[in-house]
Amino acid sequence: MQLVAFAAAFRKDSFNRKLVRLAAAAAERAGASVEVADFHEFAMPLYDGDVEAASGVPAGAQRLRDRIAAADAFMISSPEYNFSMPGTLKNAIDWVSRIPGPPVWRGKPGLLLSASPSLVGGNRALWAVRVPLECLGAHLHPEMFSLAQAHQAFDDAGALRDTKLAERLEKTVATFLRSAKALVGG
Amino acid sequence: MQLVAFAAAFRKDSFNRKLVRLAAAAAERAGASVEVADFHEFAMPLYDGDVEAASGVPAGAQRLRDRIAAADAFMISSPEYNFSMPGTLKNAIDWVSRIPGPPVWRGKPGLLLSASPSLVGGNRALWAVRVPLECLGAHLHPEMFSLAQAHQAFDDAGALRDTKLAERLEKTVATFLRSAKALVGG
Amino acid sequence: MQLVAFAAAFRKDSFNRKLVRLAAAAAERAGASVEVADFHEFAMPLYDGDVEAASGVPAGAQRLRDRIAAADAFMISSPEYNFSMPGTLKNAIDWVSRIPGPPVWRGKPGLLLSASPSLVGGNRALWAVRVPLECLGAHLHPEMFSLAQAHQAFDDAGALRDTKLAERLEKTVATFLRSAKALVGG
Amino acid sequence: MQLVAFAAAFRKDSFNRKLVRLAAAAAERAGASVEVADFHEFAMPLYDGDVEAASGVPAGAQRLRDRIAAADAFMISSPEYNFSMPGTLKNAIDWVSRIPGPPVWRGKPGLLLSASPSLVGGNRALWAVRVPLECLGAHLHPEMFSLAQAHQAFDDAGALRDTKLAERLEKTVATFLRSAKALVGG
Repeated sequence: MQLVAFAAAFRKDSFNRKLVRLAAAAAERAGASVEVADFHEFAMPLYDGDVEAASGVPAGAQRLRDRIAAADAFMISSPEYNFSMPGTLKNAIDWVSRIPGPPVWRGKPGLLLSASPSLVGGNRALWAVRVPLECLGAHLHPEMFSLAQAHQAFDDAGALRDTKLAERLEKTVATFLRSAKALVGG
Repeated sequence: MQLVAFAAAFRKDSFNRKLVRLAAAAAERAGASVEVADFHEFAMPLYDGDVEAASGVPAGAQRLRDRIAAADAFMISSPEYNFSMPGTLKNAIDWVSRIPGPPVWRGKPGLLLSASPSLVGGNRALWAVRVPLECLGAHLHPEMFSLAQAHQAFDDAGALRDTKLAERLEKTVATFLRSAKALVGG
Repeated sequence: MQLVAFAAAFRKDSFNRKLVRLAAAAAERAGASVEVADFHEFAMPLYDGDVEAASGVPAGAQRLRDRIAAADAFMISSPEYNFSMPGTLKNAIDWVSRIPGPPVWRGKPGLLLSASPSLVGGNRALWAVRVPLECLGAHLHPEMFSLAQAHQAFDDAGALRDTKLAERLEKTVATFLRSAKALVGG
Repeated sequence: MQLVAFAAAFRKDSFNRKLVRLAAAAAERAGASVEVADFHEFAMPLYDGDVEAASGVPAGAQRLRDRIAAADAFMISSPEYNFSMPGTLKNAIDWVSRIPGPPVWRGKPGLLLSASPSLVGGNRALWAVRVPLECLGAHLHPEMFSLAQAHQAFDDAGALRDTKLAERLEKTVATFLRSAKALVGG
């Protein structure tokens, strides 16, 4: 079982980078092999139909597509901006959807996570991002992991201070992996 | 593989009743055993916390819960009202969610369909109903089947006039069943 | 400026009933005249196209329509069930939308509020209910008031314990009324 | 009454550019003064918190903010990508939301339009973009104008071939302007 995981954030100290690392470690403890990608690998311009016509799909979008294609399943940890998904993540999905052939997401199991300094967590971003990914065929795990008050959530070693939350993350990832294995025949 | 299927419509001549029958037949051709339930079995009052406290959950909600619990997977065909899901279907989900114990939807694979006389189909209803069902743990199939112009879509025998659409329904149901079997270990 | 306000909850001790009373009082302090309706006035069966064909729209739906029609603007306080709007409220909107003529909501300014015992408040219900009301033409105020941890929020006199929150409610209602007056020419 | 209008598309031959021009002309016929902005004016990098910390908000985002601030109301015509709003438009909203001070959208009346080659129109994009704009305080007009089959919709002079649709656009814009004037006291 080969996973790719990334945080949909460029910021070096992003809480979502920290969270995706914890999710990756949990997945490895559950027997998966995980590659954590950096969102900078998927740097790309804003979608522009004229640029696409002249130069094709940018390298960052092709790389994201290839990373997803090479994996059995994926995990994305996304911040919430203005009650919805980040424009950056949607822009990446938009460009990747322009690559000819069946959508790379089709049939891929995916787990969505979110870390946010707010009291509410990044839940609204995740519900918004389900729509394009599911319309493109991704099998998104129904349960999602939303970390509220993320600025206080991690200890110096990058672990979750709250052991209840840490156990829930562990369990969410393990349950996701069970479904993912079943779906991809692993 | 045991499925339960129903249309979220009380109307006797509902297009969604016709569509769910076709989906059930397709599922049987693909090797599943399907029980088609009538939405009237799930008749229940509007949710009222005082009624719940005095008399518990109504029989119709309990019946819906038991039908889902007894099945490996489910199919729901729902009309769209006012750009969203029918209040009737949401009310049923709300009452069922009040029954103690883990949500009956948890881990259940589900396929959503919609029939609508409009040009657009009932897609917006289906995206709205994904939210409560997924938050309750259902594994909803990413692809959905939305039948537009449903008043012209069926022939006298109840089949879809458009053979392309009929093939797509057949394929959608078969793909759903493959995922569902994998998920429930069937 | 004549307002109608109601909580989309039948339960006698509903937090949303308490909240709508506070919103009504704030609106009166801001110079409006407010009638608080009881959701029991709008009791009605689940929507059924056959019942509609045989007996027309039920009295409760007609009463809701008349209440909205008679008012310049409206306030609804709604609980959140399963990450979305209550089936009860959507069922009422569905029935009212079957009454012939232009939608009664068209051009009506409305304010949405929510009270919920959860940490998150009932925000997701409100975003879901915006869709049918806006597609029917209501001018929903962009700001909404979502009261979290509602079981601890009220003092014995029914006021909000947290004075900051009480001020925010006062201000939200006053701002809504300013827009509403402008829109309806009051 | 001063409006700013733009299409959320970089492509030179974008259907949304054509549609926004028609909306602008309709608004001028209804007595407003309209500036049509080019989305290229709002070219900006993908949101990156580290870039923001080092260099502040990019010029394109500042220009968008200033354009909105200078206008009494706005019109945006947006394509739909993957059942939701374009990442490009959300990225612009995200950057603009980082500019200190109250959100520039607060209290601004806005009309959303969409042109799409699909049978369904770009309605889903518009419902998705309502969420961030309304959470930031924009008074979005409840009615939206969604142009389906946009590749066949315009004649050589850029007008809508279908006179019924042209009348509906005219009426939608006029109704929006009436509300907008009331809201901003114009």
